[in-house]
Amino acid sequence: MIVDGKNLQPIWFDDASGQVHVIDQRLLPHRFETRVLHSPQDARQAIADMVVRGAPLIGATGAWGVYLAVHQAKPDRLSSDALSAVCEQIKSARPTAVNLAWAVDQVATAVAKAADDPFEQFSAARQCAADITASEAARCRAIGRHGVALIAEISQRKPGQPVNVLTHCNAGWLACVDYGTATAPIYAAARQGIAVHVWVDETRPLNQGSRLTAWELGACNIAHTIITDNAGGHLMQHGQVDLVIVGSDRTTATGDVANKVGTYLKALAARDNQVPFYVALPSTTIDWRMTDGLRQIPIEQRDPEEVCLVQGLDEEGALRQVRVPPLGSPALNIAFDVTPARLITGLITEKGICAASASGIQSLFADAD
Amino acid sequence: MIVDGKNLQPIWFDDASGQVHVIDQRLLPHRFETRVLHSPQDARQAIADMVVRGAPLIGATGAWGVYLAVHQAKPDRLSSDALSAVCEQIKSARPTAVNLAWAVDQVATAVAKAADDPFEQFSAARQCAADITASEAARCRAIGRHGVALIAEISQRKPGQPVNVLTHCNAGWLACVDYGTATAPIYAAARQGIAVHVWVDETRPLNQGSRLTAWELGACNIAHTIITDNAGGHLMQHGQVDLVIVGSDRTTATGDVANKVGTYLKALAARDNQVPFYVALPSTTIDWRMTDGLRQIPIEQRDPEEVCLVQGLDEEGALRQVRVPPLGSPALNIAFDVTPARLITGLITEKGICAASASGIQSLFADAD
Repeated sequence: MIVDGKNLQPIWFDDASGQVHVIDQRLLPHRFETRVLHSPQDARQAIADMVVRGAPLIGATGAWGVYLAVHQAKPDRLSSDALSAVCEQIKSARPTAVNLAWAVDQVATAVAKAADDPFEQFSAARQCAADITASEAARCRAIGRHGVALIAEISQRKPGQPVNVLTHCNAGWLACVDYGTATAPIYAAARQGIAVHVWVDETRPLNQGSRLTAWELGACNIAHTIITDNAGGHLMQHGQVDLVIVGSDRTTATGDVANKVGTYLKALAARDNQVPFYVALPSTTIDWRMTDGLRQIPIEQRDPEEVCLVQGLDEEGALRQVRVPPLGSPALNIAFDVTPARLITGLITEKGICAASASGIQSLFADAD
Repeated sequence: MIVDGKNLQPIWFDDASGQVHVIDQRLLPHRFETRVLHSPQDARQAIADMVVRGAPLIGATGAWGVYLAVHQAKPDRLSSDALSAVCEQIKSARPTAVNLAWAVDQVATAVAKAADDPFEQFSAARQCAADITASEAARCRAIGRHGVALIAEISQRKPGQPVNVLTHCNAGWLACVDYGTATAPIYAAARQGIAVHVWVDETRPLNQGSRLTAWELGACNIAHTIITDNAGGHLMQHGQVDLVIVGSDRTTATGDVANKVGTYLKALAARDNQVPFYVALPSTTIDWRMTDGLRQIPIEQRDPEEVCLVQGLDEEGALRQVRVPPLGSPALNIAFDVTPARLITGLITEKGICAASASGIQSLFADAD
């Protein structure tokens, strides 16, 4: 995305140095800093610590992590045992998003195919990681092209008024290499001159909405308002939400969606108020083996301290964490929840919009599996 | 409530000085400080700034505010015009909870009845404010007696396991003079030796759950876990919530409930997962004139800075606010939402448990109106 005249991506490969760079998303919106990933361990840690986050981006980071393992092994080849070990290590960084395992396996397969030549291994890994990164961006662009029709249609029904889109968490370009998934139709609408306003759920505990989505939208001059995660129901009850679009970390073949915790509550409110609820997802988030999201998708639990500590700017402009609850009170930090397909109006994919059902998904991805 | 061996109330009258004292709830759980209310303006400001909060408590504080006006006027009587003006001023501090207007009007009526004698006005105001305060506490005790049956019944169905109650915001003794509304059945269960565990919604933006409810429960050694407002749906999907109990700021005669924003989302999740959803309320929160909560109950909007700034302890142990979102991003701060009666399993009142409907409420409060 173009931000302040610069073309930014949350991850990029520097051909000259052979190094992988990422934006440290933990410091946004108050600090813009980048980090170099030197090793597969660095890549794993960046994913686990949420320096990078968002299903497509952790997939891309995992892919570059495998590349870094091959890079590190030079001039030797990476043995098949070492390759397996590094892949397992990276894949274990976060359990819910399926993109991570998918992308790591893609690069591992490419490396394994590259016989025993260290140089061929290296160029296969680099090419595959670069392809994954570029193709995630391309899928997001396509999601925007398809999804913008939904916004355009609502806009025609309320001329002169902005279309109010509610989103949860950050499924923007920071999460997805470029454009984003949930935000891609919004950016596309803005480019077409359609008036759009975004309700940004702050998205506790890590505030990806108020920190990242608000920053992204502000940088692109898109009208938006930050609300607490509690407020969306009230807004829907009062006709102030025209459309909900969220992302997905893992989608079953039957259309159930694991996304940032709290998504399910918004889907319930949308149904109760007849507000269309769409999930924007690249097909890389589809787990073709799964048919029951609630029972099958592993839901990550993270450090309870993420619930207790809140980071922001203090009065002197320093980044600082403060502890909200009493020291003695335990907390639980559930990172995702599952929205059953029955609550989802449709899926916006790179191949078009379909029903959140096995047949809907098959209608677009008949050749997949 | 007995906390650390001391009997604490969030508001109390000091007979010797004629002064009204309150706990400054903005500083909890990290600082325990009390403040003296010297004037009706002090009372109004304490309500508006949420030094005191919770429907029953702002009612009691409003009542003492009228007393302070009479107190201030001594040795003169408070004219009827001045009385009206002070009442309107206090009532305007917060719009959603009906207790405030009710309690202020109670004291105003008592004062008006006390003819033209300044001393009689004064003792009528003092007596009425004290009665309102004491009777709110008594109503909470009665809510506990009735509501504990719900917890006891669930406990019998799962011997050896704690009953998991989810609550939103703080409808505890801090909000209600004593015992609380939503927490009264929990405290009563604990006194009866029933194993109970409370899921405490942190309750953004002002974190009354993670700051106040967690502190209250911890001080009474009641097992609890703080969760984000986003997490309750997931817990209900996975059978980890047996019962939801929340409070009410205003209840229509037909059983719609205005409570802290986000309550509606929990009610939707409870219905979707067949979890009983109860509202504990003293009859002072019932607005007998209203029959349609969504259309009739005024919903307060507060300063957006409450969404943007989070207060807690920094690493040096100082209370500090940090700003989470980008400076340029606007926010909206909706304080309450309305849960329609259709989503409410029952109302726990001081007179017993009833259906959330006009006939249910009438069955307990036939003489009211």
